[in-house]
Amino acid sequence: MAWNFTKTSLFLLISFFTITISRTTIASDPDILSDFIAPENQTPVNANYFTYTGMRGIFQKSVDTCTTTKATKAEFPVLNGQGVSLAVLQFPPGSVNPPHYHSRATGLFLLLEGVLEVGFVNTKDVLYTQRLKAGDIFLFPKGLQHYQYNYDHKKTAVGVAALNSASPGTVSLPSSIFNSGISELVLAKSFKTDVKTIKKIKTATRTP
Amino acid sequence: MAWNFTKTSLFLLISFFTITISRTTIASDPDILSDFIAPENQTPVNANYFTYTGMRGIFQKSVDTCTTTKATKAEFPVLNGQGVSLAVLQFPPGSVNPPHYHSRATGLFLLLEGVLEVGFVNTKDVLYTQRLKAGDIFLFPKGLQHYQYNYDHKKTAVGVAALNSASPGTVSLPSSIFNSGISELVLAKSFKTDVKTIKKIKTATRTP
Amino acid sequence: MAWNFTKTSLFLLISFFTITISRTTIASDPDILSDFIAPENQTPVNANYFTYTGMRGIFQKSVDTCTTTKATKAEFPVLNGQGVSLAVLQFPPGSVNPPHYHSRATGLFLLLEGVLEVGFVNTKDVLYTQRLKAGDIFLFPKGLQHYQYNYDHKKTAVGVAALNSASPGTVSLPSSIFNSGISELVLAKSFKTDVKTIKKIKTATRTP
Amino acid sequence: MAWNFTKTSLFLLISFFTITISRTTIASDPDILSDFIAPENQTPVNANYFTYTGMRGIFQKSVDTCTTTKATKAEFPVLNGQGVSLAVLQFPPGSVNPPHYHSRATGLFLLLEGVLEVGFVNTKDVLYTQRLKAGDIFLFPKGLQHYQYNYDHKKTAVGVAALNSASPGTVSLPSSIFNSGISELVLAKSFKTDVKTIKKIKTATRTP
Amino acid sequence: MAWNFTKTSLFLLISFFTITISRTTIASDPDILSDFIAPENQTPVNANYFTYTGMRGIFQKSVDTCTTTKATKAEFPVLNGQGVSLAVLQFPPGSVNPPHYHSRATGLFLLLEGVLEVGFVNTKDVLYTQRLKAGDIFLFPKGLQHYQYNYDHKKTAVGVAALNSASPGTVSLPSSIFNSGISELVLAKSFKTDVKTIKKIKTATRTP
Amino acid sequence: MAWNFTKTSLFLLISFFTITISRTTIASDPDILSDFIAPENQTPVNANYFTYTGMRGIFQKSVDTCTTTKATKAEFPVLNGQGVSLAVLQFPPGSVNPPHYHSRATGLFLLLEGVLEVGFVNTKDVLYTQRLKAGDIFLFPKGLQHYQYNYDHKKTAVGVAALNSASPGTVSLPSSIFNSGISELVLAKSFKTDVKTIKKIKTATRTP
Repeated sequence: MAWNFTKTSLFLLISFFTITISRTTIASDPDILSDFIAPENQTPVNANYFTYTGMRGIFQKSVDTCTTTKATKAEFPVLNGQGVSLAVLQFPPGSVNPPHYHSRATGLFLLLEGVLEVGFVNTKDVLYTQRLKAGDIFLFPKGLQHYQYNYDHKKTAVGVAALNSASPGTVSLPSSIFNSGISELVLAKSFKTDVKTIKKIKTATRTP
Repeated sequence: MAWNFTKTSLFLLISFFTITISRTTIASDPDILSDFIAPENQTPVNANYFTYTGMRGIFQKSVDTCTTTKATKAEFPVLNGQGVSLAVLQFPPGSVNPPHYHSRATGLFLLLEGVLEVGFVNTKDVLYTQRLKAGDIFLFPKGLQHYQYNYDHKKTAVGVAALNSASPGTVSLPSSIFNSGISELVLAKSFKTDVKTIKKIKTATRTP
Repeated sequence: MAWNFTKTSLFLLISFFTITISRTTIASDPDILSDFIAPENQTPVNANYFTYTGMRGIFQKSVDTCTTTKATKAEFPVLNGQGVSLAVLQFPPGSVNPPHYHSRATGLFLLLEGVLEVGFVNTKDVLYTQRLKAGDIFLFPKGLQHYQYNYDHKKTAVGVAALNSASPGTVSLPSSIFNSGISELVLAKSFKTDVKTIKKIKTATRTP
Repeated sequence: MAWNFTKTSLFLLISFFTITISRTTIASDPDILSDFIAPENQTPVNANYFTYTGMRGIFQKSVDTCTTTKATKAEFPVLNGQGVSLAVLQFPPGSVNPPHYHSRATGLFLLLEGVLEVGFVNTKDVLYTQRLKAGDIFLFPKGLQHYQYNYDHKKTAVGVAALNSASPGTVSLPSSIFNSGISELVLAKSFKTDVKTIKKIKTATRTP
Repeated sequence: MAWNFTKTSLFLLISFFTITISRTTIASDPDILSDFIAPENQTPVNANYFTYTGMRGIFQKSVDTCTTTKATKAEFPVLNGQGVSLAVLQFPPGSVNPPHYHSRATGLFLLLEGVLEVGFVNTKDVLYTQRLKAGDIFLFPKGLQHYQYNYDHKKTAVGVAALNSASPGTVSLPSSIFNSGISELVLAKSFKTDVKTIKKIKTATRTP
Repeated sequence: MAWNFTKTSLFLLISFFTITISRTTIASDPDILSDFIAPENQTPVNANYFTYTGMRGIFQKSVDTCTTTKATKAEFPVLNGQGVSLAVLQFPPGSVNPPHYHSRATGLFLLLEGVLEVGFVNTKDVLYTQRLKAGDIFLFPKGLQHYQYNYDHKKTAVGVAALNSASPGTVSLPSSIFNSGISELVLAKSFKTDVKTIKKIKTATRTP
């Protein structure tokens, strides 16, 4: 096989392939046909590929606001195809993790320390809310919006969430609704309020 | 095994079974192991079981507000296990179908008549919005919040949505967030506004 | 995009990769790990990517024979990985959509206008047949052969089918059996008839 | 809740439960949440539950016509939820297994003895046909129609098919099309032939 | 249909239903068609149904041997159909969690405190082993055997495992192989050793 | 982005991409969106692509030790995405197929000739063992360890296993535990025996 072409066209061709490939590798949470999906830039893999050290020491660090630290496919590529991810959540006293949902994952939340008020709303607008103590576990079914609130005014709360997708697809409702650019007219009609109130919330929820 | 109970306890036992069974029949959207799941009260089934006439004549009726008429497992039981459902949406001039999402289904929307502005927000808070004409199709990926707005001031718009679950699990965001009973304190912190504004929206979005 | 290469081998290479890639991108109807699968030739996508305008105005057009217009992954690439597609079916008076099945999809059919006789056969050779009016919905379970017949001699019938696969895999039985090249001997033995009858049907069903 | 009914209605109620239950037990080919699904009439199970002896000695028996002996969920209940089944196929000299498909399973066919011509047709009406020798394996993709023909005039052929569903859902095309009761008018229009030819095939394919 | 039976047979019939039903409720890890599967003995559910308090205070307790405390469908029934479970693992100094695997789940392990040596073996007998520090995460792919070893001689190690099945199906290899009753002859041939060595290991691994 | 490399490195890069792509094509056992996945080096495919002749004549060959001959995705690429594979197992008199499991497949085993003792262990360490005659079928549920033993001292036994994954992921327990490099200390603690016994088994099970 004798190939002969200019460098420029080759580079275009290759960059085209790179895009294609990174796209196709994310196409499936269901069972894979191999033990794992190997990384692209490393042959063969060693144990480091299965290890995520990005959270090392996290339990010794303090946080100013409610903070979610994730180990999903984006941070830990071996998770691609494994159908699972983890997040550590840290709540300073009085802080809230605003209503959000995971479009592709159920969450199972374990409170490691502190106390927490949690709640989710089902598809019939019924709220299930609970106050958790350390060691308690709470379920957030797939696709249902939920929140957490550290109602203690002095102690930090820390929890870990097990998620059954490598790419949970989190939608934060304040920003998704009010800071994605949906027109104020549509929002005012939707929330049966006036454009002025929508503008007020838009400004408030804007991330700095 | 010697059991001994009254007729009353028997009846209780049987009613308990009824609950149990209706619960188990809903346990699976994936492929079933039969052509269809037979109804409980009819043996054998005939063609009526596969026919839903609850929407007959719908295209001749006019509506006052944005109206969604569904043919899901709830209305059309044969859909159980078939992984598909349909909805017809009718939009009077100027009406909005407020932001909502389907926790268990992707929606593929076909505009039958009129015009419509549609939009959805991805998991990175990017809004994709479009103005559709009759015959146009728009995709709402699974679990992502979206809305429709008939921006025409004179003509009704009508569309049909194909959904890839027999039980799409729709969450309407105005009511799910503001009328499910989440505490005003949590909402005020979440939307970075005051309790007064939350109360105002709560009152406005309350369904009469 | 202005590429300009002179070498035959490059073109061969590219066509080879295109095949490879289009193959890999279609490997999964189940849930994807992203909101959608981005197109190959466009970064970033905008709302047009989620819009299919290929059917615009379809309801104003008349047809001579039974006509199925599809919006599947082939026509509307964003459907890849979304697990849903749509088809619009138009039936002139007296026309038949011959027995066929979708190897990868259940169909949920909504009659928009006119009347229609529909039927499907289950895996025990039981026929379920029904006459539909506008607004009626009928289910065609996955993989079961079915047909539609506009028994009205004056009015056109129009319907829309929701399918729970982006690539339904339609098998038309007349052509699949009689015009795919299966030997006349095998067909004659299968249908317990003579080669002459098989030849007659073969000739008749041949698409011009 | 005050219920009051006779013994007769109780019995009706119970027979209704029986139907219900057998329906719910078949609702899922995907992964189950247990090692296996236990039988209804036996606690606890022993090794016999995992053993199917209905084919014992099958390879010593001769057959008059093409014969398929199945071990699916219907014959071997433990397969419920296991996603696999088997069939042994025996072909006297010159016999044909007519065009059929499995709506819920891919088939992987291993020829144990004799010779066989096999073929399947894809969704674009392309026929793939092959002549097999003992030890050869051929794939019949899910939902695609296929046939087998023992073209040898003296020796029997024997094969085994592995199917990836406990309930493959087999559709035999001659009987499904011509003996399920689809009207002769619809069939004549579909196969572009006359009612007389349809009647002839109907009579021929009728199972005695 | 004329049935005629005594009360005793009725009771037997009903007890038979009870078994049937509990069996059918476990038939599916894939997506359910409802927000959650309701418990049998409680209508309607409240927030307690989504809360598991069986691990409350677990992080304050010390253990003598390697101890796994689970929150799976068996302990926390709401997990049925949610496709996720959790386990807390506590390792006294020098203790080992012997080779085991989860037949239905991938495990994602987060070390909360202490140090740990972990390892898994792929389907080609390649061992991947790593030493973890607090905050580190390690992946155990579905169905692959793995172990953990607290190599520190003074400090306890504690971790949490996220599992993507409500019923992971854990197989402990020492007991599964050597204490399930597989004949010593088969084991001696399998491990290419003598019956005496097999007997020695059998005695040692026997749980008291 | 300024890239600058030699032709050689370019070719290496391209061959790397080819590998990458073939890796991504294996990411999914669930339903594919096409009739089959085409091979990379052949356009268009013909019937040979669906035929595996690697076992031709296998039933005429004798074997010295227990021998498993597979037709999985590795040997028969068209199986990629088809969710099924086959294996032929041959057992000389007195031979054992040591405890192993398939991490991604249920096995349905059909004994073609001879006799065989088979067994599997469930997740509660219960052994189910059976003696099979020719024509008998036995189920090995997904992920559960099992073995086969030809207890006849004169006749060979032959069987075929249907597996519901194109890539079953077989783990042989003797080699996975004792020859993968798990430290003798960990194994001794796990099997509650001494390092000397572990060393003895390690040496014995080492494949030459």
